[in-house]
Amino acid sequence: MKQVVLILVLFINLPVMAQTKDSAKYVLVIHGGAGTILKKSMTPEKEKAYKEGLQKALDAGNAILKKGGTAMDAVEATVKVLEDNPLFNAGKGAVFTNEGKNELDAAIMDGKTLKAGSVASVTTIKNPITAARKVMERTEHVMLIGSGAERFAKMNGCVMVDPSYFHTKERWEGLLKARKADSLNAANDSTKKALKQPGNRDDKYGTVGAVALDIHGNLAAATSTGGMTNKRFGRVGDAPIIGAGTYADNNTCAISGTGWGEYFIRLVMAKSVSDRMELAKMTLDDAAREMIMKKLPALGGDGGLIGVDKQGNITMPFCTEGMYRGYIKSNGETVIKIYKED
Amino acid sequence: MKQVVLILVLFINLPVMAQTKDSAKYVLVIHGGAGTILKKSMTPEKEKAYKEGLQKALDAGNAILKKGGTAMDAVEATVKVLEDNPLFNAGKGAVFTNEGKNELDAAIMDGKTLKAGSVASVTTIKNPITAARKVMERTEHVMLIGSGAERFAKMNGCVMVDPSYFHTKERWEGLLKARKADSLNAANDSTKKALKQPGNRDDKYGTVGAVALDIHGNLAAATSTGGMTNKRFGRVGDAPIIGAGTYADNNTCAISGTGWGEYFIRLVMAKSVSDRMELAKMTLDDAAREMIMKKLPALGGDGGLIGVDKQGNITMPFCTEGMYRGYIKSNGETVIKIYKED
Repeated sequence: MKQVVLILVLFINLPVMAQTKDSAKYVLVIHGGAGTILKKSMTPEKEKAYKEGLQKALDAGNAILKKGGTAMDAVEATVKVLEDNPLFNAGKGAVFTNEGKNELDAAIMDGKTLKAGSVASVTTIKNPITAARKVMERTEHVMLIGSGAERFAKMNGCVMVDPSYFHTKERWEGLLKARKADSLNAANDSTKKALKQPGNRDDKYGTVGAVALDIHGNLAAATSTGGMTNKRFGRVGDAPIIGAGTYADNNTCAISGTGWGEYFIRLVMAKSVSDRMELAKMTLDDAAREMIMKKLPALGGDGGLIGVDKQGNITMPFCTEGMYRGYIKSNGETVIKIYKED
Repeated sequence: MKQVVLILVLFINLPVMAQTKDSAKYVLVIHGGAGTILKKSMTPEKEKAYKEGLQKALDAGNAILKKGGTAMDAVEATVKVLEDNPLFNAGKGAVFTNEGKNELDAAIMDGKTLKAGSVASVTTIKNPITAARKVMERTEHVMLIGSGAERFAKMNGCVMVDPSYFHTKERWEGLLKARKADSLNAANDSTKKALKQPGNRDDKYGTVGAVALDIHGNLAAATSTGGMTNKRFGRVGDAPIIGAGTYADNNTCAISGTGWGEYFIRLVMAKSVSDRMELAKMTLDDAAREMIMKKLPALGGDGGLIGVDKQGNITMPFCTEGMYRGYIKSNGETVIKIYKED
């Protein structure tokens, strides 16, 4: 009898013991979008609000990872916090489409199983990242879109909201500005030029994302976005595309991208970083930098990404002026940055 | 004056001369879907009809490539012929969704520019591959979905049809069969199990695709599909996902996939083949075989792909019982096959 009790106690203590070992480290990296983010056009109040938003997101994931929770749980919880924060272009705070709607995309991927889930063009799901996870866990599908994805989310207990939940004054003004710029561009050609992006892409895109390594050695990635301001015709960017904006593989890395989505799709950005590690034996940072600092601008795009590998190495390259970003490690080290020169 | 005339004549003759050189070769490879295609369950008439359908598609692309036309024009024209043929699950002949609709997906990619276009979940565009090309050429977007994609297609001169155009008796019976199998599977769980695929995936999927190398040395890939019979909730497969079912890069290869789309998405199939060539210096055939014969079944999926590289090498691996497939080369060599033992 005594022996049985002893065994039980050992099992209960295992997670706690694991944390004390050096190998039981965890890492959480986040981004809140890349773009023309300049210190001179930022107020101290706004900067503080962004940093607090990033810190709150890191705290949510850290609370899970510290207790021995999974990378999947951590990235979902982290992205949910960013989705709920109107400062970031995802969930509440999503930008408006040309028709004045908020169409949201999200994806999540489990590096242990290579299972993935995503939703695109949804308008009534409070936290698209949670719907994406349910697609992964409760279906054999990867990608569900539009009203079909919404029906699925509702059937599976996701919090549904009226589309007006996503309306924010700042994003509405962004749409009016973008519409004006686009209508000037499109004076003589209603289709072609209206789909070209004007010079100032500042209000145009933004995404949130999280990648994590947990103490069990598993990687996960999650990305969520409201897409491009003034987007038309059911445009879908890279965020919900597995391999483009989101990818995780325990053998290599977990990646979440942010930037001009079309270029991330054409380069299959996240998978390209992973394949550089797997096939060319590059480090995470070298692989990510080659893609973001060379291949992406060479094609005419811009943006950034965050990544973590199975050893806990971190990368956060971007070729824009700034990227809201940060990380927290199991040793307590916390970093939050916005600008290039940070 | 005489000299000027001579120069003009030389220019006019250049394309014709190019065709006669050994380096001016072209290759067109097609597929009409992979699956449980067994000789014993095929009638001679049906087999003949499939082979004629594949031949007609090859002829359409060959006519373009022979005249010095582009790989992009060839793959679009080839896929259009397959879309218009009710035998194949794309365009007319698309399978039905659970709700009795035909939701079509397609993608095209230009290996020279890495530009790409795709449409998903469209129900009124006669040739989704043409709409995908217009997305590529007339917008800065890559992926448009649903009614937005349809509005764009209509504005851009695509042939629009009533959804009933896509209804075929055979596919409708396929839906009734699949619904019955799924409702048996889903007796006690309306969501989770209804989304699992029953054992017989024969009627479940299928895709058409074409890849080409033209005499100018450019590669292109195109894929079009009706998706999975009885699909629900706006499910999108790999066909319209750049990197998964469709990819082209002049530096490596052009790929079009067919099979259980979710696994192609999770493996980022087409880009994985391309990256094996670029980063691990594998041949096209070795790269494609590693992905289709090893990685795909190891994860639990099945299917096949077609590929051509910049030297004109061809690959057509599949891990199913059969794959409708064929190719034609500039030297006239033509091959059309259906079964494994062909």
